Amino acid sequence: MSFAQRLERCARLIDARLEALLEGPWRKGDHLDQAPDRLRAAMTHAALGGGKRFRPFLVLETAALFGLGPGPAVEAACALELIHCYSLAHDDLPSMDNDPVRRGRPSVWKAFDDWTAILAGDALQTLAFERLADPATHPDPAVRIELVSVLARASGAAGMAGGQALDLAAEKLPGSTPLSAAEVRHLQGMKTGALMVAACEMGAILGRASPDERERLLAYGEALGLAFQIADDLLDAEGDASVVGKAVAKDSAAGKATLVSLLGLDTARAELANAEQRAIAALAPFGSRASHLKAAARFVVNREH
Amino acid sequence: MSFAQRLERCARLIDARLEALLEGPWRKGDHLDQAPDRLRAAMTHAALGGGKRFRPFLVLETAALFGLGPGPAVEAACALELIHCYSLAHDDLPSMDNDPVRRGRPSVWKAFDDWTAILAGDALQTLAFERLADPATHPDPAVRIELVSVLARASGAAGMAGGQALDLAAEKLPGSTPLSAAEVRHLQGMKTGALMVAACEMGAILGRASPDERERLLAYGEALGLAFQIADDLLDAEGDASVVGKAVAKDSAAGKATLVSLLGLDTARAELANAEQRAIAALAPFGSRASHLKAAARFVVNREH
Repeated sequence: MSFAQRLERCARLIDARLEALLEGPWRKGDHLDQAPDRLRAAMTHAALGGGKRFRPFLVLETAALFGLGPGPAVEAACALELIHCYSLAHDDLPSMDNDPVRRGRPSVWKAFDDWTAILAGDALQTLAFERLADPATHPDPAVRIELVSVLARASGAAGMAGGQALDLAAEKLPGSTPLSAAEVRHLQGMKTGALMVAACEMGAILGRASPDERERLLAYGEALGLAFQIADDLLDAEGDASVVGKAVAKDSAAGKATLVSLLGLDTARAELANAEQRAIAALAPFGSRASHLKAAARFVVNREH
Repeated sequence: MSFAQRLERCARLIDARLEALLEGPWRKGDHLDQAPDRLRAAMTHAALGGGKRFRPFLVLETAALFGLGPGPAVEAACALELIHCYSLAHDDLPSMDNDPVRRGRPSVWKAFDDWTAILAGDALQTLAFERLADPATHPDPAVRIELVSVLARASGAAGMAGGQALDLAAEKLPGSTPLSAAEVRHLQGMKTGALMVAACEMGAILGRASPDERERLLAYGEALGLAFQIADDLLDAEGDASVVGKAVAKDSAAGKATLVSLLGLDTARAELANAEQRAIAALAPFGSRASHLKAAARFVVNREH
């Protein structure tokens, strides 16, 4: 199976599970049937709608390094994706990035309204932790609680939410000094990288990786996160809105500091290639078992949207 | 020690732990020192500032029924309070309840701005689950993951967040039909009651209560939550702003359906007395050990703010 086929298979698996979780048929223990219809509809809008499911793919593929099929990793992968989807629903809000379009569709606040988008994001975050706590995620409570710990650290004030706070502070607070390249790297490492690293770490936890293997996968996730962000900035600077599916050249129009604007196109491309190399090198001990994760690094570098 | 002294002792304990968590000195494993200053300041503003810490008190006192001192329950109690504080930070937002004052101080969005208040709420929620996952909460991973599960269910789309969604839908969506008393009870049970029930259930989990004891404590929490909400509505209808510390008569001015407006003052007072009785009756098997929880029910009914 090619990389594209595996990514597609993962997306179908995640879509199906998230759809069942949010819209039924509900399993015993799921209880979203008791959520108000409008809130659930907004959560569904935020969670379903054409995401590539790249982060869940990382969970599944790192778990696969240790012989796990997609089934035993899918619940944890969904939980991670729910966190990603909650963050998008909130980031798009008028008081945050003010983005009316997401993946070629109205963003949640545009399709509903601000308060519904805030609550839908809130409830998606809660659902992520609720799912991790469910025995369906893993039979061992010690594994489940470690997944909660890793996902919470990656997505909280010292991770994803903190990165978004730094990003918005630089953009919105009067008198903010322009960010340096090091500061942009730090910010992006929190905002985007932390969740990619968590994806790899969660796969490693599910696979009961050795400490050394886990370190390798963290290094892979870190390099991949950086590559992902530079590629995103390059797409923003060079991309075509009809392909990317959202407003482009928005960052440069807003005078926002990105690695591309700070380093220039050529240096940014070189840093991207370097990050790709480091990601692939970190996987060396896994040999050919890691071919799909290596392909993921190449995909990140070469993606068009 | 009187009820008031025990409540005060609990508040000091929770305040001290939340302060250390958010402002240091940080313990090994805490990592909020890596959060951006502005975000952390907003989280601190939301989490510290004169709350009665009534929900944490319920955790501590239900755990105490089973011989646990405050120490072994304080982390779980703090996690629950972080969820409560996140919800207040979001509920006060202009696009939600538009409340500029909370506990006599500017609410988070007023002291900072909307995006900071949204992210602070988000990160407080994450921190709650991060804390529950920490071994300091309880040495047994099975206990910790059960706490995560109970808190997530109580605070998500079928609980607290769902209740707020129902409340805002009734208020904001054009063409909403006025709520009936049964619908208001249902809504308030989700919005306010679920977290009170969770507080009692978390204490029961920490105390390794029997299934029957746990049922009793859930029944207590449910009656207490209803009493709390009716008392709140009565305060809104009758209270004095300088004592309550927030805008009063706001609900009636907004034409908002409450049990008081739907049933009238006398019937609402009778329902309040009935809920108090049920709360106290549920505690019967615990005998005099439950005197503080019984006092909590009386406190809820008679509080002035």
